[in-house]
Amino acid sequence: MNAPTEAPPLQQHQREAILAALRAVLPAECLLSEQEDTRPYECDGLTAYRQLPMAVALPQNEEQLIAVLKVCRQLQVPIVPRGAGTGLSGGAMPIADGIVISTAKMSRIVALDPLARTARVQPGVRNLAISEAAAPHGLYYAPDPSSQIACTIGGNVAENAGGVHCLKYGLTVHNVMRVRMVSIEGEVIELGGAALDAPGLDLLAVFIGSEGMLGVVTEVTVRLIPKPPVAKVIMASFDNVVSGGDAVAAVIAAGIIPAGLEMMDKTSARMVEPFVRAGYDIDAEAILLCESDGLQEEVEEEIGRMSEVLFRAGANAIAVSQNEAERMRFWSGRKNAFPAAGRISPDYYCMDGTIPRKRVAEVLVGIAEMEKTYGLRCANVFHAGDGNLHPLILFDANAPGEFNRAEQFGEAILALCVAVGGTITGEHGVGIEKIDSMCEQFEVSEIAAFIGVKRAFDGAFLLNPNKAIPTLDRCAAYGKRQARGGLFKFVKQVNA
Amino acid sequence: MNAPTEAPPLQQHQREAILAALRAVLPAECLLSEQEDTRPYECDGLTAYRQLPMAVALPQNEEQLIAVLKVCRQLQVPIVPRGAGTGLSGGAMPIADGIVISTAKMSRIVALDPLARTARVQPGVRNLAISEAAAPHGLYYAPDPSSQIACTIGGNVAENAGGVHCLKYGLTVHNVMRVRMVSIEGEVIELGGAALDAPGLDLLAVFIGSEGMLGVVTEVTVRLIPKPPVAKVIMASFDNVVSGGDAVAAVIAAGIIPAGLEMMDKTSARMVEPFVRAGYDIDAEAILLCESDGLQEEVEEEIGRMSEVLFRAGANAIAVSQNEAERMRFWSGRKNAFPAAGRISPDYYCMDGTIPRKRVAEVLVGIAEMEKTYGLRCANVFHAGDGNLHPLILFDANAPGEFNRAEQFGEAILALCVAVGGTITGEHGVGIEKIDSMCEQFEVSEIAAFIGVKRAFDGAFLLNPNKAIPTLDRCAAYGKRQARGGLFKFVKQVNA
Repeated sequence: MNAPTEAPPLQQHQREAILAALRAVLPAECLLSEQEDTRPYECDGLTAYRQLPMAVALPQNEEQLIAVLKVCRQLQVPIVPRGAGTGLSGGAMPIADGIVISTAKMSRIVALDPLARTARVQPGVRNLAISEAAAPHGLYYAPDPSSQIACTIGGNVAENAGGVHCLKYGLTVHNVMRVRMVSIEGEVIELGGAALDAPGLDLLAVFIGSEGMLGVVTEVTVRLIPKPPVAKVIMASFDNVVSGGDAVAAVIAAGIIPAGLEMMDKTSARMVEPFVRAGYDIDAEAILLCESDGLQEEVEEEIGRMSEVLFRAGANAIAVSQNEAERMRFWSGRKNAFPAAGRISPDYYCMDGTIPRKRVAEVLVGIAEMEKTYGLRCANVFHAGDGNLHPLILFDANAPGEFNRAEQFGEAILALCVAVGGTITGEHGVGIEKIDSMCEQFEVSEIAAFIGVKRAFDGAFLLNPNKAIPTLDRCAAYGKRQARGGLFKFVKQVNA
Repeated sequence: MNAPTEAPPLQQHQREAILAALRAVLPAECLLSEQEDTRPYECDGLTAYRQLPMAVALPQNEEQLIAVLKVCRQLQVPIVPRGAGTGLSGGAMPIADGIVISTAKMSRIVALDPLARTARVQPGVRNLAISEAAAPHGLYYAPDPSSQIACTIGGNVAENAGGVHCLKYGLTVHNVMRVRMVSIEGEVIELGGAALDAPGLDLLAVFIGSEGMLGVVTEVTVRLIPKPPVAKVIMASFDNVVSGGDAVAAVIAAGIIPAGLEMMDKTSARMVEPFVRAGYDIDAEAILLCESDGLQEEVEEEIGRMSEVLFRAGANAIAVSQNEAERMRFWSGRKNAFPAAGRISPDYYCMDGTIPRKRVAEVLVGIAEMEKTYGLRCANVFHAGDGNLHPLILFDANAPGEFNRAEQFGEAILALCVAVGGTITGEHGVGIEKIDSMCEQFEVSEIAAFIGVKRAFDGAFLLNPNKAIPTLDRCAAYGKRQARGGLFKFVKQVNA
C-alpha cells in the first residue's frame, strides 16, 4: 500500500511527443510551453518553493479537459491542477516533467437560481464574483478566505477554504452541494446533490479538500445565503494573552456563535496599525474582534451579551463599530496582517494549525518561548473562534541560516499544535509544505487509508503526486530523522 | 473495477473450522451459533428479508473485535456488522456463510465533557441514552430517528441517521466529530477530530453512512448541544396537498429554518388519529407540523411569522401547542405513523426517498396515480422541510401478488424521486432493499468510484458484501430488465 516512486527525468523527444499530443487536443492559445509563458505558474502563494512545469494547459471547456487528461493518462504525465494560485501550502507547485492544468478559461457563472438559493459555476469563477452576482438578489456565498478577490471556487474546493466567518457559516464543504469533476481516466463524475443526505458513500466530502489529487473540477453548485441586514463588530483589549484566550472560550461557552471571532497579539497589532490605521489598541497584549450579524434587534442583543461576557473575562476596553465604514476598518487590520508582515520584515512564513480553544493561552506562551529558541520574532493572528492559528514567523532569507530556522520554528509550532490535541493545518492545506507534518499527525494505518482512497481515484498517482499525502516510506524516513535530531516527537494525544 | 462474485456454500468442516477459530478468541458467551440463539438476528427492521447467519459474535471490547476481524480476514468469512437491528433497508441482514458482529456488549459511555460539549461513547450505546446522560448538564444529542429509544450510535453512524429535527440540527454526519474503527485488516483507524477542518482526506464523512462496508466502529465522539428552553409546534390544515406542499417551500423561502417541518396526507392522519388521538384535523387533505425552539421570545416571534406565512400559503386552520404535553401529543401522531399503518393493514412497506421541496405537490399527485396502477393504498408522511418522503404502501402479504405489486410500487416511487431531481433514500440507507435503485440513481463512473473506495478499505469485500453498492454487472442486468419490462427508466436529470 505504498505510493509513487520518483520517475527519471524525461528525454527531450519524450517531452516533444507529449507536447505534440497536447497540441492535437487544445487550441494553440490554450497550451503554454515557452519559459516566458510558464514562468507565472512556477509557484503559488508559497513562493519559497518554485519549479517550472513542462507546459501549462488552459482548457476552455470540459471536452478539452477530458482530452488533456486522457493524453496525460496515456503518456503517464503527472498533472498539477491550479485555480488562481493563491494557495499557501504549495499545492499548485508544478512538477518538472509534468503539466499544470489551469482552470482560468473556465470562468462562467452557468446558472444562478435565487429561489433555490444556488449558483452553478465553472471552477475558474472567483470566490467574490459569486457574491457579486448574487448581490442583486440579497444573497451571497459565505466562505470568505482573505484571498477572496482573486481565488477561485475550484481552488476553494481543492483546499476546503474557510475565512473569518466560517465559525458561523462553515467551510467550503458546508457550502457546496455538488461537484462535477473529471477523473484521471477522463470520466465525468458528479458528487453530492440537492438532498440533505445522499445514498452511496459521501464522496463529495472526500473530494472537497483533496488538494487536486482525486480529479479536476469542471462545475460547482454552491449554496447562497441571505445577506444579513446588519453586522457590527466589537474590538476588545486585554492586558494579557491568557485572559484574551479565556475570553474566546467564554464567548462560546455562553452559547454565542459570533459571525467572526478573531484574535491578534500585540506584535500583530503594532505591525498592522501604522499600515492600515484600523484604530487598534497597540498597548493591549491581545485584541479580540467579535462580530454579530442578523436582524437589527438580534445584533443589538448579541453585541450586548458578548460585551458583558468579554468584560467579565477581563477585557479592559471595548469599542463597537458604529457604522459599516468603521466595521470594515476594524476588519481591515486583521485582513491585512500578512501584507503588513511583509512591510516590517524582509520575509515572513505564515503557519496554519488548529488547537482546542481552551489551549490558546498555553500555545501562545509556548510560541513565545520558541521565539527565543529560534532567535526569530513571531506575530500571532488567529481565527480564535475555531482555534485556527496563523503565526507569522518573521525572518530574512538573505541572513545565513534564517530560512532554515524559520522552517524549524514552523515545524515546532505544528508539533505543539498536535501535542495539545490540534491539527497541522486549519485551512491552508498540506500541499508540499506540510507533507512531513502529516507523519506527525497521523498513524501509519490512517496514512494508508488516505493512500488507499487516492489509489481508488488515481491508481497511477498522476494527479498532483507527492503533495498532501506522504508515502509510508517518507513517514518512516521522517520518524528516523526526528529521532536522530532529538527534536520533540510528541505522543499523539486523543482529544475527545 | 468490479466487485465480489457469489462464493459456493461452505462445507460443514469449513464452518466448524471457522467457529473453532472464533471460539479461540472470544469468551463462550460472546459467540452464538445455535439456531435458537441466532434466530433473533435473522433480519433487521426490513423484516421481509431473512437469513440465518453461521454465527453471531458479540465482542466485549476492541481487542476481541480485532481478533474476530483477523480470523474473518484470514478465513475469508463475510461479516455483517449490527447495531440494534432497527434499520429499515436490510443493511444488517445476515449472510448464510457469514457472521454477524453485534456491538451490543460495547455499550459504555466512556466520557462526557459538559464544557467541551462532547460525549465519547462505545458503538452499542443507544441514541437516547446519550441524551439522558447529557440531560443533567442541560445538553442533548440532536439527531432523533424514530427508533431512538432502541437504535445505537454505531448503527446511526453506519446509516447516517436523521430524524424530525435534522432540518435545523443536521444528520449524524453533522453531529459526530470523531469515529474510531477497526478495519478488516484488524487495524485501528481514527477518523475526524475536534477541529473544524482536518488535514488529509475527509474520511469521517465517507465512513458515516457507509453501511458497515468500510470498518467496524469501536468508539464515537459526538457533539452535544444545549437543550432549547422552549419549543412549540404549529399544526396547520390545508384543503389540498398542492397548497400544503407550497406552504413548505414558502416557510423556507421566508428565511425560517424550523426545528421540525413535517407533512402528513389525509390517509395518514385518518390512519393515525384513532390510534393516538393527537387531535389531527382528519378532514384536511394535508397537515403540516412546524416546530420552533429556542428562547421564549425567539419562539413566540418565529411562531408568529410561521403562522403568517402558513395562512398566506392557504392554511385554513392553525393550532399552536399550548404546553409541552400538547406538543408531544401533536408529534406522537407523526412518530406513530408506522405502527398505525400496522393496525389498519396486515402489512406495509415504508419507502424513503427525497425530492426537491418545490416538487412535493407534483410527486404526491404522481403517487396517487400509482395507487390506481398498482391497486394498493399509500399513506404519505414527510420530513417536508428537507424533502424526505416516507410513503407507506399498505398491502397484505397473504393476498396473491400483493407483495410483488408493493415492491414494484415502491420502485416506481423511487424512480419518480430520481426523475424530479431527488434521490432514492433520505435516511434509511440502501442496504439490500434499494441496491438496484442505486443503478437508477448513479452513472457507471459514479458506482465505479464507490467500488474503488470500498476496495481501498476492504479489498476482499468481506464487510457487508452485496449491500449498499451494486456491482457493475448487477447494474447492467438491472438496465436490461428495465428495458425489457418497459418500466419507466427516467433520464437522470441534473438539478442544480
